[in-house]
Amino acid sequence: MNVGNRHYRTIWLKGQDRRTVQIINQQILPFSFEVIDLHNVEDTARAIRDMYVRGAGLVGAAAAFGIYLAALNAREDSFNEEMAAAALLLKSTRPTASNLAWAVDRMIHALAGSRGTLEQKREAAKIEAQAIADEDAEFCRIIGIHGLGIIKKISQKKERGPVNILTHCNAGWLAFVDFGSALAPVYAAFDQDIPVHVWVDETRPRNQGAGLTAWELSEHGVSHDLISDNAGGHLMQHGLVDLVITGADRVTRQGDAANKIGTYLKAVAAKENNIPFYVALPSSTFDFTMLDGLKEIPIEERDPQEVRNITGKTEKGTIETVQICPEATTARNWGFDVTPARYISGLITERGICKASEKGICELFPEYFRAQ
Amino acid sequence: MNVGNRHYRTIWLKGQDRRTVQIINQQILPFSFEVIDLHNVEDTARAIRDMYVRGAGLVGAAAAFGIYLAALNAREDSFNEEMAAAALLLKSTRPTASNLAWAVDRMIHALAGSRGTLEQKREAAKIEAQAIADEDAEFCRIIGIHGLGIIKKISQKKERGPVNILTHCNAGWLAFVDFGSALAPVYAAFDQDIPVHVWVDETRPRNQGAGLTAWELSEHGVSHDLISDNAGGHLMQHGLVDLVITGADRVTRQGDAANKIGTYLKAVAAKENNIPFYVALPSSTFDFTMLDGLKEIPIEERDPQEVRNITGKTEKGTIETVQICPEATTARNWGFDVTPARYISGLITERGICKASEKGICELFPEYFRAQ
Repeated sequence: MNVGNRHYRTIWLKGQDRRTVQIINQQILPFSFEVIDLHNVEDTARAIRDMYVRGAGLVGAAAAFGIYLAALNAREDSFNEEMAAAALLLKSTRPTASNLAWAVDRMIHALAGSRGTLEQKREAAKIEAQAIADEDAEFCRIIGIHGLGIIKKISQKKERGPVNILTHCNAGWLAFVDFGSALAPVYAAFDQDIPVHVWVDETRPRNQGAGLTAWELSEHGVSHDLISDNAGGHLMQHGLVDLVITGADRVTRQGDAANKIGTYLKAVAAKENNIPFYVALPSSTFDFTMLDGLKEIPIEERDPQEVRNITGKTEKGTIETVQICPEATTARNWGFDVTPARYISGLITERGICKASEKGICELFPEYFRAQ
Repeated sequence: MNVGNRHYRTIWLKGQDRRTVQIINQQILPFSFEVIDLHNVEDTARAIRDMYVRGAGLVGAAAAFGIYLAALNAREDSFNEEMAAAALLLKSTRPTASNLAWAVDRMIHALAGSRGTLEQKREAAKIEAQAIADEDAEFCRIIGIHGLGIIKKISQKKERGPVNILTHCNAGWLAFVDFGSALAPVYAAFDQDIPVHVWVDETRPRNQGAGLTAWELSEHGVSHDLISDNAGGHLMQHGLVDLVITGADRVTRQGDAANKIGTYLKAVAAKENNIPFYVALPSSTFDFTMLDGLKEIPIEERDPQEVRNITGKTEKGTIETVQICPEATTARNWGFDVTPARYISGLITERGICKASEKGICELFPEYFRAQ
C-alpha cells in the first residue's frame, strides 16, 4: 500500500543483485519512517525478535527470507547443517507465532528437494522465499475482494454516510507483506470509492492501533479516527459501527479465534448490538490440530512493564517512555484472548467467506479435514 | 481513607476560620501528593473543570463548597444575583454528573430559606456545604457495609484465594469525600480481614484506574493488579473475576447507569460469563427525571488530545505528555457510556441493595416516585 504516494511492501529484496533484504522498521513507527537492510540470518532473527517486523504474515515472510540469506552465506560443505541451524535460530525468535514455523519448514522442504549446485540451491531459496511473500500478499489481496462484498452490501443499504468499520490492533498491510487481513477489505472498498471510515482501537498495552493502524490508514488516505479501547461499545449502542473486522493469530478448526487482548470484548458487544463481527485471515493462520480455542490455545503472558508504561513522542520530538501508575503497583499482561466461534459472523479467507464452525471451515478447506 | 498511614478526606474546610476550602490535587496523582487551597467560586469551578477534583460525590461536595465560597465573597445588595451566577458557573463545568447540579440546587434552596443577615446566610451556606460533604462520606460508608455482604458470601463459597473484584475507573474514596462507592465494599472487606484482590482497569484515556484507583489501593494497603482495559473479558472467561463493582455518574429511575466509557463493555462480558455486576452509588447519583438512559443521558464528548496523548512519569522523574499516534490522526473522545439496567445485578445504595429496575429503586426510594 502507499506511504506518501509511493507504493511499498513491508519486506522485499534490494536492487539488482537481490542479495540483501529490506524491511520497514516498525519499531519506530509512527514517528519515523526508516528502511533497514538485513544481510544475514542473524540480522533477520534480531529483526523478528525485537519486533522491527511483526504480524502473522510478515513474520512468516521475514523468516523465509532469513533462510534465503542463510543460504547465500552458507558454505557448500556444511550447507545442510547451516540451514538447520538457521531454521532453529529463526523458530526460536517468536515461538508462539505459527506462520513463522510454517514458513521456515516450507523453506527447508524446498531446499531438501533441490539437488543442484550451491548456486542452484541459493536460487531455489530465493524463489521459494519470494513465493511465500508473493503468496502472502496475493492471499491478502483476495481476502480484500471477498470482504469487499460485505462492505458493499452495507454501503448500498445505508442511506447516508460512510460504512463505519471498527478494528482492533493492527491487521493491516504492516502485519503482512501487503494489503493486510482485516484492513484488506477496507482498502479494496477505498479503491472502489465506496465511502469507508475506520474506528481505530488504540489497542493497549502496545498501542498497535494508535501507532500502526492509524499510520497506515493515514498514509494511504483512508478516513479514520482513533478511539480508546473503551469506546467501541458506546459507538455500537448508538449505531456508529456498521461492521467489525479483526485479524487473528490462531483460529481453531471449529472457528475459535485468538487475537490481540480485547478482541473478545468487542465481539461480545457486537453480538449484543446485532453488528456483524468478521475475522479475516489467510489459511496459514488456521490451526487444524485444535478444536476448543478457550481450552487449547496457549495465551502468552508478557512483561507487566508494557501495562505500567507507555511510549510516545514528546512535544520536543523525542521518544520517551512514561510510567502511568504508582511505583508500588504491580500489573498483569496477557497478550491475547480467544473469541469463541459463536460470536463470529464469518471468517474471511483467501478461498471465500465461511461460517466460523467446523462444517463451514471444512467446506472451504476440505483437504485439512480429510487426513484426520 | 489512608495516605501513608494518615487519614484524609478529599475536601475539607481549612483551619480555624474555615474560610478556605482545601482539596487533594488529583491531577498530579499518583506522582505527587499536593493539597491546594480554593479561595472563591472561580477557583472551585476551575478545579472541577480541570479535574483537580473529579468523581460524582466529590464534584458535588466541591460545588457545594463553591457556593459557600461565593456566599463568603458576595455583597449583601447583590447576594441572590451572585449566588445565581455562581450556581450557573458551577453547573457549566461538567455536564454528565448529576451530583453537581443536585448539590448546587440543594445549596441554593438552603440559602433561599435563610432570611437572616449576610453573616447568617454565609453560616447557613457553610453548614449546608459541610452537611453535603459529611452525608456523602456517611452514605459511602454505609454503601460499603451493604456491599460487604456480597463479598462475604462469595468469600465463604470460594475454596481458596481472595475474592477477585474488577473495577473500572475510580469510584474509590478519591471520587467522593471518603470511602468511595464501588471501593467502599472492598475497604469494608479489607478492614474485616476478608481476603480481597482488585483488578484495576487502566481506564484510558485519562487513566483514572492506573493513576487514582491503583494509588488509593496502594496507600491503603489493598492487594491489586493493574490491567489494560482490554484484559477484563479474558479474565472473566477464565474464572479470574468473582465480582464486578463500578460506580456511576448518573442512574435513571429504571436503573440504567452512565459511568466512565468502557463500563458497558465489562457489563456485557460479565453477563455473558455469569459474573455478578453491581453498580454502587449514593442516592444523589439518581436522576429520577430520566427513564431510558441510552436515549436521555447526555454523554460528554471531550478533547481528542486525551486520546492522542498520555501523561506519565519519565525515568528521570519528570512528568511528560507523549503522543501515541501519527500527527495526521484525528481522535474522538466520549467520556461515558450507559449500561442498560438489564446488565446490572443490583444497585448498592446507602439504603441497601436493590434491583436495577423502577420497581426495585422505588422500594428503596419511594418518596421520589410519589410526586411523579
